[in-house]
Amino acid sequence: MQGDVSARKSWRSRMMKAALACLLLGGGAVAHAQTRDAPLHTASRDELDIVKVVLGQEKAWNAGDIDGYTKGYKDSPETLFIGRQISRGYKEIVEDYRHNYATRASMGSLTFSELEVHNLSDTFAVCLGRYHLDRSKKEGGAADGVFSLVLEKTADGWRIVLDHTT
Amino acid sequence: MQGDVSARKSWRSRMMKAALACLLLGGGAVAHAQTRDAPLHTASRDELDIVKVVLGQEKAWNAGDIDGYTKGYKDSPETLFIGRQISRGYKEIVEDYRHNYATRASMGSLTFSELEVHNLSDTFAVCLGRYHLDRSKKEGGAADGVFSLVLEKTADGWRIVLDHTT
Repeated sequence: MQGDVSARKSWRSRMMKAALACLLLGGGAVAHAQTRDAPLHTASRDELDIVKVVLGQEKAWNAGDIDGYTKGYKDSPETLFIGRQISRGYKEIVEDYRHNYATRASMGSLTFSELEVHNLSDTFAVCLGRYHLDRSKKEGGAADGVFSLVLEKTADGWRIVLDHTT
Repeated sequence: MQGDVSARKSWRSRMMKAALACLLLGGGAVAHAQTRDAPLHTASRDELDIVKVVLGQEKAWNAGDIDGYTKGYKDSPETLFIGRQISRGYKEIVEDYRHNYATRASMGSLTFSELEVHNLSDTFAVCLGRYHLDRSKKEGGAADGVFSLVLEKTADGWRIVLDHTT
């Protein structure tokens, strides 16, 4: 039980960090419910940088900028996207996004929430979150889901090497 | 285009490695289609070890051994399982498995396939795969899906720190 409580506290503190990061960055992704009674923590530089990349994607998407959005992924043949299908390598990921969201209307309006960063090491981290896509019925309607990202600290900054979106 | 071809070859070789690993280990998880014209490669020790952990889970599951199955996860409050819900920490993951699969019949028969190991670093790796669960209609019926695992090389061997199962 002791373990459970400290685990929960540890999680809360991490969410608080992510929430803080979002607030600092002016993003909309704040895990309200979980942070109510959480102690204050300072987000690490890496956590801030990772949240920045993800919120940068959200911003680019809502500006209709697919190229800006896909810049969040590492430009490598090893990068993976798992959604309804598996896209292998940066080029294929970019092509699939361009194909699936060929018009501004089909992109709709994207909101990320409940972002949580979990450091694995100095160079790898996991970021979980939820997305909501507002879109006209004609374009496929609204969509909601969960994503888990693995990010790598590259020479260009943190970049997504694995995106599993449900 | 050159990049695409070499990327594809790189992927094929990795799948071949995983397929080889499975064959060596006597597992059933072989990516047939992708390995037809792939060059031969030797699976690394780490790749073999990771496939062994995942196939060990399959074996434990099919022996009705939930505890054996969940030993594949890292015993840490940071370990994450994302399925229909998010389970946080090893204890919760084990409890949720025990709760969701309380009887042998509810567990059915599990088959993993198309396992692919992607090394991120010396201590982290990603393993993708598909699962098929054979189960009576009364118990919820058959299920199919994709999973992405992040594994960490711990003192006890490779363990799952993130499981996202769709």
